[in-house]
Amino acid sequence: MFKVAIVGAGSAVFSLRIISDFTKISEFKDVEICLMDIDETRLNSTFILANKLNEEMGAKLKFKTTTNLEEAIDGARFVINTAMAGGHGYLEKVRKIGEKWGYYRGIDSQEFNMVSDYYTISNFNQLDLFLKVARLVEEKGEKDAWLLQAANPVFEGTTLILRNVPINMVGFCHGHYGVHHLAEVIGLDIKKVDWQVAGVNHGIWLNRFLYDGRDGYKMLDEWIKNNVYESKHPFDDQLSLAAIDMYRFYWQMPIGDTVRNSSWKYHYNLETKKKWYGKFGGADSEIGWKWYQDNIKGITETVNKLADYVSMNPNIKLLDYNTYKDYMNIEIFKEEIESIINPEKFSGEQHVPFIDSIVNDKKQRFVVNIINNGTIEGIDNDVAVEIPAWVDSSGIHPEEIKPKLSERVIKYYLRPRIMRMEMVLEAFMKGDIKVLEEILFRDPRTRSKEQVEGVLNEIMNLPENEKMRMHYKR
Amino acid sequence: MFKVAIVGAGSAVFSLRIISDFTKISEFKDVEICLMDIDETRLNSTFILANKLNEEMGAKLKFKTTTNLEEAIDGARFVINTAMAGGHGYLEKVRKIGEKWGYYRGIDSQEFNMVSDYYTISNFNQLDLFLKVARLVEEKGEKDAWLLQAANPVFEGTTLILRNVPINMVGFCHGHYGVHHLAEVIGLDIKKVDWQVAGVNHGIWLNRFLYDGRDGYKMLDEWIKNNVYESKHPFDDQLSLAAIDMYRFYWQMPIGDTVRNSSWKYHYNLETKKKWYGKFGGADSEIGWKWYQDNIKGITETVNKLADYVSMNPNIKLLDYNTYKDYMNIEIFKEEIESIINPEKFSGEQHVPFIDSIVNDKKQRFVVNIINNGTIEGIDNDVAVEIPAWVDSSGIHPEEIKPKLSERVIKYYLRPRIMRMEMVLEAFMKGDIKVLEEILFRDPRTRSKEQVEGVLNEIMNLPENEKMRMHYKR
Ligand SMILES: NC(=O)c1ccc[n+]([C@@H]2O[C@H](COP(=O)([O-])OP(=O)(O)OC[C@H]3O[C@@H](n4cnc5c(N)ncnc54)[C@H](O)[C@@H]3O)[C@@H](O)[C@H]2O)c1
Ligand SMILES: NC(=O)c1ccc[n+]([C@@H]2O[C@H](COP(=O)([O-])OP(=O)(O)OC[C@H]3O[C@@H](n4cnc5c(N)ncnc54)[C@H](O)[C@@H]3O)[C@@H](O)[C@H]2O)c1
Repeated sequence: MFKVAIVGAGSAVFSLRIISDFTKISEFKDVEICLMDIDETRLNSTFILANKLNEEMGAKLKFKTTTNLEEAIDGARFVINTAMAGGHGYLEKVRKIGEKWGYYRGIDSQEFNMVSDYYTISNFNQLDLFLKVARLVEEKGEKDAWLLQAANPVFEGTTLILRNVPINMVGFCHGHYGVHHLAEVIGLDIKKVDWQVAGVNHGIWLNRFLYDGRDGYKMLDEWIKNNVYESKHPFDDQLSLAAIDMYRFYWQMPIGDTVRNSSWKYHYNLETKKKWYGKFGGADSEIGWKWYQDNIKGITETVNKLADYVSMNPNIKLLDYNTYKDYMNIEIFKEEIESIINPEKFSGEQHVPFIDSIVNDKKQRFVVNIINNGTIEGIDNDVAVEIPAWVDSSGIHPEEIKPKLSERVIKYYLRPRIMRMEMVLEAFMKGDIKVLEEILFRDPRTRSKEQVEGVLNEIMNLPENEKMRMHYKR
Repeated sequence: MFKVAIVGAGSAVFSLRIISDFTKISEFKDVEICLMDIDETRLNSTFILANKLNEEMGAKLKFKTTTNLEEAIDGARFVINTAMAGGHGYLEKVRKIGEKWGYYRGIDSQEFNMVSDYYTISNFNQLDLFLKVARLVEEKGEKDAWLLQAANPVFEGTTLILRNVPINMVGFCHGHYGVHHLAEVIGLDIKKVDWQVAGVNHGIWLNRFLYDGRDGYKMLDEWIKNNVYESKHPFDDQLSLAAIDMYRFYWQMPIGDTVRNSSWKYHYNLETKKKWYGKFGGADSEIGWKWYQDNIKGITETVNKLADYVSMNPNIKLLDYNTYKDYMNIEIFKEEIESIINPEKFSGEQHVPFIDSIVNDKKQRFVVNIINNGTIEGIDNDVAVEIPAWVDSSGIHPEEIKPKLSERVIKYYLRPRIMRMEMVLEAFMKGDIKVLEEILFRDPRTRSKEQVEGVLNEIMNLPENEKMRMHYKR
């Protein structure tokens, strides 16, 4: 039928989600899926479980694996990029260097960009990989092939690629599900909610919120008056005090990871974070991020174990959780696997439904990252925005943003966030270290020139950053 | 002929400059000039010296004085506003409170806005006076009367008024004379320089710089390679290391007060300021600003003394410096008075030549602050920009900005500066203290909520800020 490449397929949970979605769309049961990763162990685990799932679901997906990027992309009609150059190990290493030089939570934690795996300043290898993938899609992909960007930073990545490589490309995030969570908590039936979000990735705001035709914000205000939300885990922040304080200032509700991407006021230190995000201090505190890392480590281990078990016991049933539940060592994976094996339920990732819309001309609504081109007034046309859009075989059709984003969101939030994106991309494209320095000179944690030069030097001198070092030392 | 009102005419030097310019334009020798100030002593000194000058120059200007703003503006065709609500005393009081709360040089010293008498955050009374003057011009002025804004903050003031009051209005500054100084220092004849500057007030950049048709920037680069400039006084910064460092980053040269309006990198403390601006630490260091204050204090005293002397000795000649030089106690005033009494030389202030262009249809070039309306691409239309323009009786005709401002100037300098202007004006128009707080929360000197609330409270509790307090406590 057609070929899909998943770059970074060793991210097993993500890959299984995508693959299970493919098995659940009848038109897609014989798609060719090329799994690509540089980590063979992870790749192999994904491959084993994917085949098993495929078999049990009665699909005829054809899997290949490769560690060669070119081979993966060659002839693909869709390329999904979920790879993270350097992995979590790199992020932690760089964060530590940052903290040593006085940057709490690392230099990449910035005003309106606090998400702990959303590095921009020190993420040269990731941006470089983005461009490499995009250029291969242009050269080796099928004619009019699509690149679906899942890896972060989606905002910088989408803007970078769409400005520099003439391909079809879209960035995806699941942050907008915050609207569902919001509705649920305040007691609204999401099916009756007419909503829109708009902004940039991890900076989206609920510009439209109607419930059965009535003003949903009135109901939210009422809820806020009478409730204080108690977060159940570090990421459970959609109704945190931080979110509500931002809502009060910006007049529209921040959605999804936008709540984490607030200004320094909420992030000075762990104590401040706890005050605003609840007892864990939010996802990006030392507590919250450790929790997340332990979770994904647990999941990765579990997936590997499960893959081993499956390869040694080819007769077990993935669709029957009870047959292998003893081999699952963490509870959190249960929900995940249950959704994967449920034939009625989609993963919630937008990639496969998007492909469905394009290939099978099924008109569906998505929240996509694409070039602005006037959709959001008051920000540049060549900046990637995150907005709702309808997709069919003729492509992506952005909704009109109505009502508009508030002036404060545009002027006091999006514009400064966009400025830093511009600085990061300019530094990267031109190899001009001065622009990265300038970001840090404007960082409230900076006290001196020595600190700025010191921290950047130490990061660039990491062995894995040789290419970055050469790029900036031209 | 027609009436001119000077609001804040007690600023004697400024008023004498304006008045002497009037005496030197033959068509204007019988204009009616209403001097208005709330300080009767200063007003009286100006009045005495103005009459004396008028008489000796053989002009027939008719002077009036008043302490009543309405009376001054009533029937005026041109209103020049140079008043500073609260005076330097207020600025120092507020700066001190700021420093007490950890804001070196006060809360109004901000990134890209370090000029020490250019308060925005705590300058409620000044913005309020701006609007009051503008509304009176609308109501009481002659039909199509002009407001000429000299008082700072010119950027905030011009934007505020042009957005809210439907009058003819223009803001003036003399910062662009930095181009002359630059040319002189690097050895170019300014008459052969084809230059343009553009930006916002105190944030203007040399976008065009040709010498005899050749690239002036090459000559500047050559000069920089071979010279280090030694500043002769605190304001002598056009070729300081700060200016050159900014030039290297932004690719265009900052002009005039723009050099002072750099980022925190140059302003952490006195030591840093000295490194970048020379031995005085620039105009806005504790040393530089004290020097300036001593100077203007000296000038004011000298003017008062001179006025006394003139009123007691009506036969002395202002045009003959030797007859009263013993009554001058500071050297710095000598140059000033020499230019005032020289019939060939204009003061350099743009106000009277501008009025000449409008009234007598003399086409001349000015650097004006007016609403952008597309002149500078990449910034909002409703923001006041400072640009070169040709003026005649049909009005102000902006030059096309060519070549454009650099992307870095637009994206990394002007936009963040504009954002703070927007915040200040929104806070002021809506009486929303949260917006002022937000400016401070984004200030690198801020460490806590208590600090932000504390400093703003203490400033608002000053007796002269009762109106501000009421406005924000609604
Ligand atoms: N868009 C979204 O909704 C969303 C949600 C969560 C995470 N993410 C992002 O997805 C990415 C992956 O996150 P993760 O936690 O799964 O990370 P991970 O490190 O566990 O997985 C990424 C995979 O990429 C592989 N990889 C690294 N370098 C590669 C290369 N050069 N070529 C091919 N593969 C390579 C790794 O081996 C690994 O298997 C991150 O950028 C993360 O921020 C996006
Ligand atoms: N645009 C420029 O080129 C330029 C250059 C230098 C200074 N300035 C600005 O000009 C203004 C005056 O500066 P200065 O150093 O002469 O200050 P100043 O305090 O010496 O003089 C200002 C005058 O305004 C008067 N005044 C105060 N409140 C008044 C009111 N409500 N009504 C009428 N008059 C009032 C004062 O009595 C004083 O005589 C400041 O805003 C300063 O920043 C502008």
